Amino acid sequence: MNLGMTERVAKLVEEVRAMIENEIAPASEEYFAEVGKHPSGDRFQLTDRQLEILDELKSKAKARGLWNFWLTDSDKGPGLTTVEYAYLAEEMGKVPLAAEIFNCSAPDTGNMEVLERYGTPEQKARWLPDLLEGRTRSAYLMTEPDVASSDATQISMRAVKEGDTWVLNGEKHWISGAGDPRCTLYITMAMTDPAAEKHARHTMFLIPADTPGIEVLRPMQVFGHDDAPHGHMHIRFTDVRVPDDAVVLGVGRGFEVAQGRLGPGRIHHCMRAIGQAERALELMCRRALTRKAFGKRLADLGANHDIIANARMEIEMARLLCLKAAWMMDNVGVKEAQPWISQIKVVAPLMALKVVDEAMQMHGGSGISQDFPLAQMWTHLRTLRFADGPDAVHRRQVARAELRKYTNEKV
Amino acid sequence: MNLGMTERVAKLVEEVRAMIENEIAPASEEYFAEVGKHPSGDRFQLTDRQLEILDELKSKAKARGLWNFWLTDSDKGPGLTTVEYAYLAEEMGKVPLAAEIFNCSAPDTGNMEVLERYGTPEQKARWLPDLLEGRTRSAYLMTEPDVASSDATQISMRAVKEGDTWVLNGEKHWISGAGDPRCTLYITMAMTDPAAEKHARHTMFLIPADTPGIEVLRPMQVFGHDDAPHGHMHIRFTDVRVPDDAVVLGVGRGFEVAQGRLGPGRIHHCMRAIGQAERALELMCRRALTRKAFGKRLADLGANHDIIANARMEIEMARLLCLKAAWMMDNVGVKEAQPWISQIKVVAPLMALKVVDEAMQMHGGSGISQDFPLAQMWTHLRTLRFADGPDAVHRRQVARAELRKYTNEKV
Amino acid sequence: MNLGMTERVAKLVEEVRAMIENEIAPASEEYFAEVGKHPSGDRFQLTDRQLEILDELKSKAKARGLWNFWLTDSDKGPGLTTVEYAYLAEEMGKVPLAAEIFNCSAPDTGNMEVLERYGTPEQKARWLPDLLEGRTRSAYLMTEPDVASSDATQISMRAVKEGDTWVLNGEKHWISGAGDPRCTLYITMAMTDPAAEKHARHTMFLIPADTPGIEVLRPMQVFGHDDAPHGHMHIRFTDVRVPDDAVVLGVGRGFEVAQGRLGPGRIHHCMRAIGQAERALELMCRRALTRKAFGKRLADLGANHDIIANARMEIEMARLLCLKAAWMMDNVGVKEAQPWISQIKVVAPLMALKVVDEAMQMHGGSGISQDFPLAQMWTHLRTLRFADGPDAVHRRQVARAELRKYTNEKV
Amino acid sequence: MNLGMTERVAKLVEEVRAMIENEIAPASEEYFAEVGKHPSGDRFQLTDRQLEILDELKSKAKARGLWNFWLTDSDKGPGLTTVEYAYLAEEMGKVPLAAEIFNCSAPDTGNMEVLERYGTPEQKARWLPDLLEGRTRSAYLMTEPDVASSDATQISMRAVKEGDTWVLNGEKHWISGAGDPRCTLYITMAMTDPAAEKHARHTMFLIPADTPGIEVLRPMQVFGHDDAPHGHMHIRFTDVRVPDDAVVLGVGRGFEVAQGRLGPGRIHHCMRAIGQAERALELMCRRALTRKAFGKRLADLGANHDIIANARMEIEMARLLCLKAAWMMDNVGVKEAQPWISQIKVVAPLMALKVVDEAMQMHGGSGISQDFPLAQMWTHLRTLRFADGPDAVHRRQVARAELRKYTNEKV
Repeated sequence: MNLGMTERVAKLVEEVRAMIENEIAPASEEYFAEVGKHPSGDRFQLTDRQLEILDELKSKAKARGLWNFWLTDSDKGPGLTTVEYAYLAEEMGKVPLAAEIFNCSAPDTGNMEVLERYGTPEQKARWLPDLLEGRTRSAYLMTEPDVASSDATQISMRAVKEGDTWVLNGEKHWISGAGDPRCTLYITMAMTDPAAEKHARHTMFLIPADTPGIEVLRPMQVFGHDDAPHGHMHIRFTDVRVPDDAVVLGVGRGFEVAQGRLGPGRIHHCMRAIGQAERALELMCRRALTRKAFGKRLADLGANHDIIANARMEIEMARLLCLKAAWMMDNVGVKEAQPWISQIKVVAPLMALKVVDEAMQMHGGSGISQDFPLAQMWTHLRTLRFADGPDAVHRRQVARAELRKYTNEKV
Repeated sequence: MNLGMTERVAKLVEEVRAMIENEIAPASEEYFAEVGKHPSGDRFQLTDRQLEILDELKSKAKARGLWNFWLTDSDKGPGLTTVEYAYLAEEMGKVPLAAEIFNCSAPDTGNMEVLERYGTPEQKARWLPDLLEGRTRSAYLMTEPDVASSDATQISMRAVKEGDTWVLNGEKHWISGAGDPRCTLYITMAMTDPAAEKHARHTMFLIPADTPGIEVLRPMQVFGHDDAPHGHMHIRFTDVRVPDDAVVLGVGRGFEVAQGRLGPGRIHHCMRAIGQAERALELMCRRALTRKAFGKRLADLGANHDIIANARMEIEMARLLCLKAAWMMDNVGVKEAQPWISQIKVVAPLMALKVVDEAMQMHGGSGISQDFPLAQMWTHLRTLRFADGPDAVHRRQVARAELRKYTNEKV
Repeated sequence: MNLGMTERVAKLVEEVRAMIENEIAPASEEYFAEVGKHPSGDRFQLTDRQLEILDELKSKAKARGLWNFWLTDSDKGPGLTTVEYAYLAEEMGKVPLAAEIFNCSAPDTGNMEVLERYGTPEQKARWLPDLLEGRTRSAYLMTEPDVASSDATQISMRAVKEGDTWVLNGEKHWISGAGDPRCTLYITMAMTDPAAEKHARHTMFLIPADTPGIEVLRPMQVFGHDDAPHGHMHIRFTDVRVPDDAVVLGVGRGFEVAQGRLGPGRIHHCMRAIGQAERALELMCRRALTRKAFGKRLADLGANHDIIANARMEIEMARLLCLKAAWMMDNVGVKEAQPWISQIKVVAPLMALKVVDEAMQMHGGSGISQDFPLAQMWTHLRTLRFADGPDAVHRRQVARAELRKYTNEKV
Repeated sequence: MNLGMTERVAKLVEEVRAMIENEIAPASEEYFAEVGKHPSGDRFQLTDRQLEILDELKSKAKARGLWNFWLTDSDKGPGLTTVEYAYLAEEMGKVPLAAEIFNCSAPDTGNMEVLERYGTPEQKARWLPDLLEGRTRSAYLMTEPDVASSDATQISMRAVKEGDTWVLNGEKHWISGAGDPRCTLYITMAMTDPAAEKHARHTMFLIPADTPGIEVLRPMQVFGHDDAPHGHMHIRFTDVRVPDDAVVLGVGRGFEVAQGRLGPGRIHHCMRAIGQAERALELMCRRALTRKAFGKRLADLGANHDIIANARMEIEMARLLCLKAAWMMDNVGVKEAQPWISQIKVVAPLMALKVVDEAMQMHGGSGISQDFPLAQMWTHLRTLRFADGPDAVHRRQVARAELRKYTNEKV
C-alpha cells in the first residue's frame, strides 16, 4: 500500500505548485475582482478580462501537460493513480480557480466520469471533447428544495415519456456551476417510475442548458455569498423536453449512475480540503511567530502549542486516510472502497473546518476579514458537510459496513 | 440569588417579544433590503425609508416605555437589575435591529455607561441626551491593526499635548457602528505617555466623529460582509486635534475607563447570543419534525435526539451562568464579578456557535442559505470570540482567579 | 428562582464541612483500611472497629442535628428544600463514607422516599424507623444481567401469585449496598403480568434480605474493585416467597413507584459528583502551583490556564443546572421537573469525569495512584453514566420534551 | 511509502493471531488467576504454575520462529521493518501476556535496544543473551517521585564517584516490571554532575537488581491495582555501589541514551493500543447487534451508528499515523522521525481510551465489570498518557517542529 509520492507525481506537484503560486494566485484575485463588472451588471456573466485570464492560463497549463490529472484510468488522460492525483488536488485546493485551470474542477470531473463510464459513443462524442478541452462546463442536478435529498430515493422531479420525448417538470437547487455562462450541460436525475422498486424509480438525463423551459430562479447564497460567476443555482423545469437518447445507461438506472459518479467526486473535494487546511496551518504558524502580546510571541502563549500540534496531527491523519481511500479506489474499485470514501468524506471537511477556525482565532479579528483568505475557506468548507451527502448519512454507511462484519442480518 | 424572572420583567418580556415579532422583525427585513439604495449608492448612507423605519419604531418603543432597559442603576432609566435586563436582551438578540429600537444596542450602551460613570457634567450634557434619546449613535475606538489589541497595553495610537490641545495620530480598525452616518462620537483610547507604568500609558478621549483629520479608510468585512450601514470601520487619524476637556476621567486613566466599560458590554453580547441559540434550537426542532428521510422524520433519525438534547442542556447552562454573572454585577459590583463575566464571555459565544452550527446541519444546504437566518447568526456570533477580548484572554483571567485561591504568589 | 444558599443552610454547610474534614475524612481512611480484616476473611463483613467508627460518627451527627437532610418535605426531617440539600450533598460527595454518616446515602434515601411516599402504614412502621435512624440499610433491585435494563419494560424477574403468596424467580445484578451485612430490605421490581400493557406489567415488592431462596452470587466489580463492604451484588432468587402485603402501591404499579423514586435519587448523585469535581479542581490547582517543569510552575505552562478555566466554568454551569433542577422539584414537582433532572443526570457525571481526568493528568502518574483520591473518584463517577439510566436514555427524554413544544404528534 | 502488510508479515500475523487466540488467551487467564497464590502469599512471586505457563508458551513461540520481532535492524532478530512489526504488535496488544510470550514486551524491548545500540561488548555479553532468550527481564529507572519527570533534566537521583565506584542515592517510582522476580537488570538514570550543562548532567547505569542498598518500597497502584506480578515499583537506593563499567555510553551522556531508547518504546505502546481499540470496537459491535432495548437492537438506536462509525474512523486514522511514524523510523531514522513519534504518542492512547469508553457505555454496567476486559483495557491505556512523557510534552515537540519550518529563531 504505497501512499507516498511517486517520482513522476513529485515532479508534477512541483510544477503545479509553482504555477499556482506564481501565475494562478495573482490572476485569481484579478478574476474575482472582475465579478459584477460585465456591462450588463450581471454577476453571472464573464467579462472579457475574465475570459482572457481563463484562456491564457488554461492554454499554458495544457501546453505544459498539466491537464486533466483526474482522468486516472483512461487513455485520454495522463494515467495517474488516484493516490497520485490526491497530491495534486491538495495543491489545487489552496487557491480558488486553480482546479479549473488544470481542468480538474468540480462538478465537471464527476460529470466527465459519468460520460466516460456510462455514455453511449454518441453521448461521448457530443459532450466530452469540449469538456475535456476545458471549453465548456457542466452541472449536476440532483438536490431539490422540497425533499431531504440526502435520501436520494425522495428525488421528485418528474420525467414523463410522451412518444419519443421525455417531459421534465420540477425544481432543483444548489446546482453548482450552473451560474457560469459556459455551462452547457445539465446532468439531471428525475423520477421516471414512482411505482418501481425504490432504487429503480429514477433516471439520469443529459440536458442541454439552453433547452426551453429551463429557468434559473436565483443563486443560492452560501453564508450570504452568491459565489458568482460559478454559482449554486435554484432552477425550475417547466415542460422541459428531451429526446430518448438523453437517457444515460438506461431508464430506471439513475441510482447506479449516481453511485458511480459520487466516489471520485467526493474524494476530490476531500483532497482539496486537506490542501486548504495546510494553507491555514501555515498562516496560523506565521501569525503565531510574528504577532506579540503580553511580552511574548503568540506562539509562546497559553494553549497555542497545543493548538498548532493538534492541527498538524489532524491534518496528517486525514491526509493518510484520504490516501488510503484513494488507494482502495485504485486497487479494489470504487464500489468496494465506499466505506473508506465515506470515512474521509466525514473526516476531511470537519478537520479542515477546525484547523481554519483555529487559524482565524489566532489572527484575531483579521482572521475573519478580507485581509486573509480564512473566512472564505471556512464558508466553502462548511458546504462540504452537506455536499454529496451530509455527515450523518456517511457515518451510517461506515457503521453499517462495520456491523456487517459480525452479522448476516440486515444492518 | 434569585435568577428567575421578576413579575415586572415578565411583563416587559411579553411586550418586547410581541413588538419584535409583530413589528420589528418585518421592518428589519425591509430595512436591510434598503441597504445600498441611497441615491449616492453608498451602502453607509441611510435611505429616507430607513430613517423612517427607525423613527417610527423607536418612537413607539419609547412611548410604550420599552426604552433604555440597560440603564440598570440610574434614575434616567427604568431601574431594572442586570438579571432582569438579561431576559430582555435575550429577546432582542433574536432579530437584528431589535436592540437598537429599544436603544439597547452595542456599542452605544457601553459608551453611555462610560459617559454616565466617568464623564464630567459638561461631557454628559454634550453627549448623553442625544444618545439616551436614540437620536445619535457612538463608536468605541480601541482595536488597532498593527498590534494584538487583546493586550491593550500595546495600543499605539499616539496622543501628544501641544499647548491645550491633544494631537492624535494612528489607525484603528473594527470600529463597529462607525459606518452609520448618525454616529457622532468616537470614544478613543490613545497612548499619552509611553514612558509611564504599563497601565498608566493610555488616556480615553471623546472625539466628535467629524473632527478634521479623521478618515474612514474602508469597512472591515465579516466573512465577506460589510454589515452596512452599521459597519466595522478601519479609520486613520492624521493630526486630529481635540481640546483638553475631551479627556475622560484623567490623563493616564484610559485603562480604568476601559475596564469599567467592558463588564456590561460583554455580558449584553452574551445575553443576545443566548437568544440566538434559542431561536436556532427552535428552527432545528421544527425542521426535525417536518422534514423526512429514509421513511422517518429527521427527529427520529440517528443522533438527532442527542443533538437536540445537547443543545437544550448547553443553552440552559449558559443562560444560568449568564444570569449568575449578572447577579454578581448587581450584588458585588462589576469589578468583583469579573471572573464570572469572563466565564460567560467564553461560554456563550461558543455555545451559540455550536447550536447554530447543528441547526444549519439539520437544515441541509438550506441552513447556510438566504432562506434561513442561521448563516447570518453564525457569522455574527463568530465575531464575539474576538470582540471585547479573545477566548484565550478570558480563560486566563478565570484561571488566575482560581489559582489565587491557593497562593499568595503572583499568578 | 432563588438558587443561592439560604442562611440556615449556609450554617449547616459549615458544620457539615467541618465534621467531614476533621472527623469523617480520617475515619474514612481507617474504615476502608479495615476491609477484609474480619476474622472470617470476608470482605463483606464489618469488623468491630468498622462498626465502632460508624456508630460513633453517626451518633455525633445525629446529636448535632446533622441528619436526614434529604427528607425535604416531611415532618420527620429538617424540612430543607431540595436546593438547600444540594449544597449539603455537594460537601458529602467529597469524602467516601460522609453521606452515610449523615444518613444521606444511596440507595437508602431513594428507598426511604419510596416507603414514605407509597408505603402503607404497616410497611412504614416495619421498615422506616430503622432506616431513618441509620440502624439498617436497604437495596433497590432493578437491573438484571439478561436484559438492557435501561428499558425497564424488559425487566424479566418473574413474580407469580400462589394463593396469598408471591413466588419470585430470576436474577438481578449491580445491587448496590447489598454487600453490607446491615442491609435488611430489598425493594424489588418483578414482572407480575407479562400480558398487561407495557407499563403495567411490573410490581414493586418489599422483601426481607434474609428471605430463603435469595442467594448472593458474587460482587460485581467496578474497574476491578468490589467496593466492599457496600458492594454491587449479583443476586439470584429461587422460589423466593413473600406475602401479598409485600406489594408496594399495588400490583402492576411498579413503574409508577420506580419513576417516583428516581428523581431525587438521581439528583443526589449529581450533587455529590459536583462536590467531587470541586475537590479535583482544588487538587489540580494546588499541584499546578507547587510542581515545576522546564523552569516554570505547571500553572504557567502550556494549556494549563485553559484547562483550569474550563474546569471552573463547567463546574459552575453544572452546579447551576443542578440547582435549577432541584428548584423545579421544589416548585413544580418531581414529575414536571423530569426533563431538568434528565439534563443534570447527563451533565454532572460527564463534567466531573472530565475535571477529574484533567486533574489526574496534571498530577502525572501520581494522579492515578494510591497517593491521590483521583483514580477512585473517576471510577466511581464512571458508574454514574449507567446508574439510574444511561446518558442516551436521558438525552432522549430531554429531546422529546423539547420536540413536544412544537408538535402534537408522538415524539 | 508502503504502509501495507508485506507477504511475509501477513503470514506471521496469521500465526501470531492464532497462537494468541488459541493458546495465550486461555493461559493468560489462568496465569493472572494464580497471582497471590505463591506459598509466601507474595503477589510479586511467581507460582510454579505461572513459571510453567510462561516456559511452555515461550518455548513454543521460539520454536515456531515467533520471537523478538521488534529486533528490526539486527542480525540477531528476524529483520522485520518497524512497519511490519506494527502489524504484529497490534495483535499482541489484544491480550495481556501476549507480548511477553513473543519476547516483545515493555520495557524489555527498549532496554535491549539500549544494550544493543550503546552497550560495550562486555555489557552486551553480560546482559543481552538472557534477555534475548526471554530468561530474564529488565526495568528502566527514570521517573522520580519528587520531581516532574516529564522534564528529565530535573531527575535528581544522585550518583557520586568514589574512586572507581559510583554511589547512588535517591528514589524512583513507576518502575514497571520491577515487581517480577525474574527482573535482574535496572537501567538507571542518575545525576552525575549538577554543575554541567543541562543535558550533560545525567548518566545511565546498568545495575543488577540485587545490588545491596536497593529496596522496593511498594507497588504503585494503577486505579487501585498493583498489576502483579509485573508491578510498577517505588524503589529507594541507599548507597548503591556499582563499578565504573556500569556506565552506558559515557558519563554525562544519559540524555542521549534516553532519547535513543524512547522512540521505539513509545511506538510499540501505540501499536498495542491500536490493537486494544480494535478489540473494543469488535466487542461494541457484537453487543450492539445482540442486545435489545425499546424494541430495537442497540445498533439501531440513537447515536449508536455515529459512535461506531467514529470509532472505526479514528482507529483507521491512528493506525495509518502509527504506520507512517514507523515508516519514518525505518527510512529516515529515529531522530528525524521524532515529530511523528510524538504525534502518534499523543493520538493513539487518546483514541483508544475513547473507543474503549464508548464500548463500555454500549455494554451498560457490564462494560466496567469483570465480565468484559474493557475496564482493564481502559485503566492500562490511561497510563500511556503519562508513560514516556505526558501528552502536553509531546504536543510541544510537535508544535516546535512545525514552527521551525517558518523561522530561524528559537521555538
